[in-house]
Amino acid sequence: MSNLELIIGNKNYSTWSLRPWFFLKNLDVEFKEKLVFLFEDDTNDILSPYFSNDKVPVLLDDDLQIWDTLAIIEYVADKFPEKQGWPIDAKARAIARSTAAEMHSSFFALRNALPMNLRKHFPDYPINDDVKADIQRIYALWDYCRQNATVKGPWLMGEFSGVDAMYAPVVMRLQGYDVKLSGFAAEYAEHVSSNKFMQEWVAAGKQETQIIALDEV
Amino acid sequence: MSNLELIIGNKNYSTWSLRPWFFLKNLDVEFKEKLVFLFEDDTNDILSPYFSNDKVPVLLDDDLQIWDTLAIIEYVADKFPEKQGWPIDAKARAIARSTAAEMHSSFFALRNALPMNLRKHFPDYPINDDVKADIQRIYALWDYCRQNATVKGPWLMGEFSGVDAMYAPVVMRLQGYDVKLSGFAAEYAEHVSSNKFMQEWVAAGKQETQIIALDEV
Repeated sequence: MSNLELIIGNKNYSTWSLRPWFFLKNLDVEFKEKLVFLFEDDTNDILSPYFSNDKVPVLLDDDLQIWDTLAIIEYVADKFPEKQGWPIDAKARAIARSTAAEMHSSFFALRNALPMNLRKHFPDYPINDDVKADIQRIYALWDYCRQNATVKGPWLMGEFSGVDAMYAPVVMRLQGYDVKLSGFAAEYAEHVSSNKFMQEWVAAGKQETQIIALDEV
Repeated sequence: MSNLELIIGNKNYSTWSLRPWFFLKNLDVEFKEKLVFLFEDDTNDILSPYFSNDKVPVLLDDDLQIWDTLAIIEYVADKFPEKQGWPIDAKARAIARSTAAEMHSSFFALRNALPMNLRKHFPDYPINDDVKADIQRIYALWDYCRQNATVKGPWLMGEFSGVDAMYAPVVMRLQGYDVKLSGFAAEYAEHVSSNKFMQEWVAAGKQETQIIALDEV
């Protein structure tokens, strides 16, 4: 039994909320979720009990707060070792974590130009050179993971792990802004977007009516 | 025995290089270091064998490359469990990792306005409001770590851990730009800056003559 509760933002927009949610769901870890609509008049009041500087996600485990996505992934992987949140093989794990951490600290061109917006699709959306460079690096990372996977399977390191959670919103951005994929990137994006938990998240996001002006291109 | 080799940048400027170096040194893990001066004509050529997108640090363990600071910390903590790179207590570890990860993805005002430059000291340097907000959040994080430490000691979680490595360059920025500290922040900054490995790093940085224009205010 687990008392985990995940505080998340709008499913339509919040990439940082999707990551730990997708991780917990795909590992089959039970948790409650609490959705807080962001950039509303009462958002900061609702988030004020948490030590997250007005940000989501936050994972609660009784009185413990974990307020960063990578830290949540590490906590869940530690708490449920049988779920194998990271690859068992030490080298594969190091590569998965390096790739995950690069998403955590980088790709600002992509993140700024192509905000996740599950309600919309933009055919032939113009992609600038900085965003193209980010996308090329992401393809290279995905290939590097694939080459260094020690088990077979459709995820980046073969079996599902934390690195897939980190890149799940990237897949939804690439599809939303009609970025043409090929090879392993195309297969992987199809696998992620057809995942039943991703479909559940997307369906819920599409039901939301709240608008975050900042994330509308 | 370990075959670890850490690829780092200029000691005077490179905060991301200092973090894993400080971590390895304070855990007493043996490693070789290779210093690559950044933003020189040959920098990209020298870094081209590594899968790090022209960035430092990279940790090599024989043929394995780990190209992100948080991933390096996790790898070393996993490889040498007896060194206790993270707190043993699960809650303390979750808080240490949340605090470490927040440094990894945030504090851009501080990072842009006050680049580390160990050769220089700026008395009464003007601090803008965004940087002040970053500094206040960092004080709050340090206090939160301190309150949640389960062992005694001068580091953020009592004993030395990955979170201290993540904030070590922040201490050097605050001192370099003459930010006045008090209370636990002042004690902690004094502890970090007087650490023998920090003094070794600073002394080496001061010997360097290379200039990175981008990091000169």
